[in-house]
Amino acid sequence: MKNFNFQAGTKILFGKNKINELADEVLQHSNRVLITYGQGSVVKSGLLDTVKSKLAEKDIHFEELSGIQPNPRLASVKEGIKICREKNIGLILAVGGGSIIDASKAIAAGFAYDGDVWDFCTRKAVPSSPLPLGSILTLAATGSEMNGSAVITNQETQEKLPMGSDLLRPQFSILDPVYTFTVNKWQTAAGTADIMSHLFENYFTPDMGTDLQDGIAEAILKTCMKYGPIALEEPENYEARANLMWASSLALNGLTGTGKMTGDWSTHMIEHEVSAIYDLTHGVGLAILFPNWMKFVLNERNAFKFVRMGKNVFGIEDADPMVAANKTIDAIRKFFDKLGLPSTLSEVDIPETHFVEMGKKACQFGPIGYFQRLNETAITQILEMSK
Amino acid sequence: MKNFNFQAGTKILFGKNKINELADEVLQHSNRVLITYGQGSVVKSGLLDTVKSKLAEKDIHFEELSGIQPNPRLASVKEGIKICREKNIGLILAVGGGSIIDASKAIAAGFAYDGDVWDFCTRKAVPSSPLPLGSILTLAATGSEMNGSAVITNQETQEKLPMGSDLLRPQFSILDPVYTFTVNKWQTAAGTADIMSHLFENYFTPDMGTDLQDGIAEAILKTCMKYGPIALEEPENYEARANLMWASSLALNGLTGTGKMTGDWSTHMIEHEVSAIYDLTHGVGLAILFPNWMKFVLNERNAFKFVRMGKNVFGIEDADPMVAANKTIDAIRKFFDKLGLPSTLSEVDIPETHFVEMGKKACQFGPIGYFQRLNETAITQILEMSK
Repeated sequence: MKNFNFQAGTKILFGKNKINELADEVLQHSNRVLITYGQGSVVKSGLLDTVKSKLAEKDIHFEELSGIQPNPRLASVKEGIKICREKNIGLILAVGGGSIIDASKAIAAGFAYDGDVWDFCTRKAVPSSPLPLGSILTLAATGSEMNGSAVITNQETQEKLPMGSDLLRPQFSILDPVYTFTVNKWQTAAGTADIMSHLFENYFTPDMGTDLQDGIAEAILKTCMKYGPIALEEPENYEARANLMWASSLALNGLTGTGKMTGDWSTHMIEHEVSAIYDLTHGVGLAILFPNWMKFVLNERNAFKFVRMGKNVFGIEDADPMVAANKTIDAIRKFFDKLGLPSTLSEVDIPETHFVEMGKKACQFGPIGYFQRLNETAITQILEMSK
Repeated sequence: MKNFNFQAGTKILFGKNKINELADEVLQHSNRVLITYGQGSVVKSGLLDTVKSKLAEKDIHFEELSGIQPNPRLASVKEGIKICREKNIGLILAVGGGSIIDASKAIAAGFAYDGDVWDFCTRKAVPSSPLPLGSILTLAATGSEMNGSAVITNQETQEKLPMGSDLLRPQFSILDPVYTFTVNKWQTAAGTADIMSHLFENYFTPDMGTDLQDGIAEAILKTCMKYGPIALEEPENYEARANLMWASSLALNGLTGTGKMTGDWSTHMIEHEVSAIYDLTHGVGLAILFPNWMKFVLNERNAFKFVRMGKNVFGIEDADPMVAANKTIDAIRKFFDKLGLPSTLSEVDIPETHFVEMGKKACQFGPIGYFQRLNETAITQILEMSK
């Protein structure tokens, strides 16, 4: 187990009607709020009105930034920073899924920074003294509600890059599983694959002595595999939505990565290159790519890690480690199939055109991956396997 | 899954030589520290000297409170409060195991309270504005390093009672597994049983829909069962000590209790009555009592929970749930035997004399337990089964 620091201090308010505690949480930070949201689902569902009335009841002033898109754009972030500065905002309240929370983190970080907020993504600057942030989650997927990471898309440069700091963890997040009852099958499946992908990224590393973390990851994976299909069949099954929602937060709040030098993260970086150009749903891209990444990196030296997951999560046993490992990868692919997710990029209309370019851009800061280092040729090969 | 709030904000600094970050952490809170410790093991090991020199290097003033005993006494707490007030202390630094950290929490809470600090244990008062607290852990057992609970013994009244508040969570805790290399076999075994008991308390509840939490508890249990015996055989096995140490914190930081109304906690309360009189090592008392509590409460309606643990942790399968449940309890008893822990109170020289009185005192605030309510007669019966 490697040395680590861990502090996941986000206050989680979990369960039915937790929105009733919103105003008191907000007032611990400020009485001037920027509400950020997306393209209308929180308007239609009535959640936005509820949020506004809860704030108004306690005389909390609010501004609004709407229209934040999936794979959130730099333009929205800049607009948010402008509003926060002009309106003397003291807290950002993200109402939505991971994209809304990610954009809000970038706004929070950019607020106190004189330069271009994109500098945080290109590693030219590090966030300091961000605005505080709260979230009201409406999609179980990214884990953004309990971590300090964000991924922003720069349409001008066709780049999608991460930024992050422990300072960007939300101060509080309201997780009411009822808000996810209206999430459609496609997004429910993609969200489940996203949660599982985060667990894979931290699981497949060369670190040793991390039984505890890997065991916890296996438990969260089993939860996703039990409740993902139930949520698809019964969208208003509270226990299924609740287990997925809490799984989303715990899968990527740092817990399963403790004691490891880092996660692997190459599959995420490859997916970012694809969705920077094609605006693919993140979890769908991951579900297509991950089994192929696994097949690509599997070898006799690292097979034991796939064997372990196969045994503990899928009940797979085989005397030959390579056979057991391949069966495990096939079982993961089969589970994604069961969720109704595509297995090839062509199914989501993504052609081979940019595969070489994607490989190059993924390696713009050098080879990627930790379980196995990948250069641009390797990445292009994984994309070819996924076509 | 029931509604919950969760915020485990303690900053964990985990690993070899993390003591090098001590002074910077301390200075985020104060430059006037009270170091609390026990009966000499941290003096012998040289850790106390290291702590003092790290503080002195950064001109941090410190006072000392030594001699805190296992099952920490109210007298030590009052002495600590007096020093903090007289010497204008701004942070308490606990160096030791759970008893030292527990006593320090009580000191932290009592500092700002005009009445008798024992009021927090008798539920006459609730902590507010406590002094900040940091810890340097030397024993993997109680989880006190990452939670807001403490248990204090009042020798005058022969009472051992809990107090707690989220405000009493340490601000930071340094967890260097190397500091536990010198923990002897008895304490290593007792610590492992203590960690497992915390998981049992939160696992055996009547709440439904908590697959995620129960799966995480099972993963931590399996970690204890793998590494407890290794730590006994190879006291300087870093991975074993590291896994047990991080398991200790995660077993009782609130995580496995999320989504449940409360844990059961009756076995802990019974053990407190025993050790209030006999000064028994906490984990040893729990290892004796827990399998008997399990046998006592097991019935056909709740057997499924034992069956689940049996299957997922011990690989036990049996078509008859009551048979599987009993096999699970026997497997737990057998594992404690393997750790070299006693299975009866008579082995640790505790006679039947006070069994009836212990039952009465455990119920001083009413019947105890959540998985099954226990009155004083039931408690006396469990003690009889453990004699």
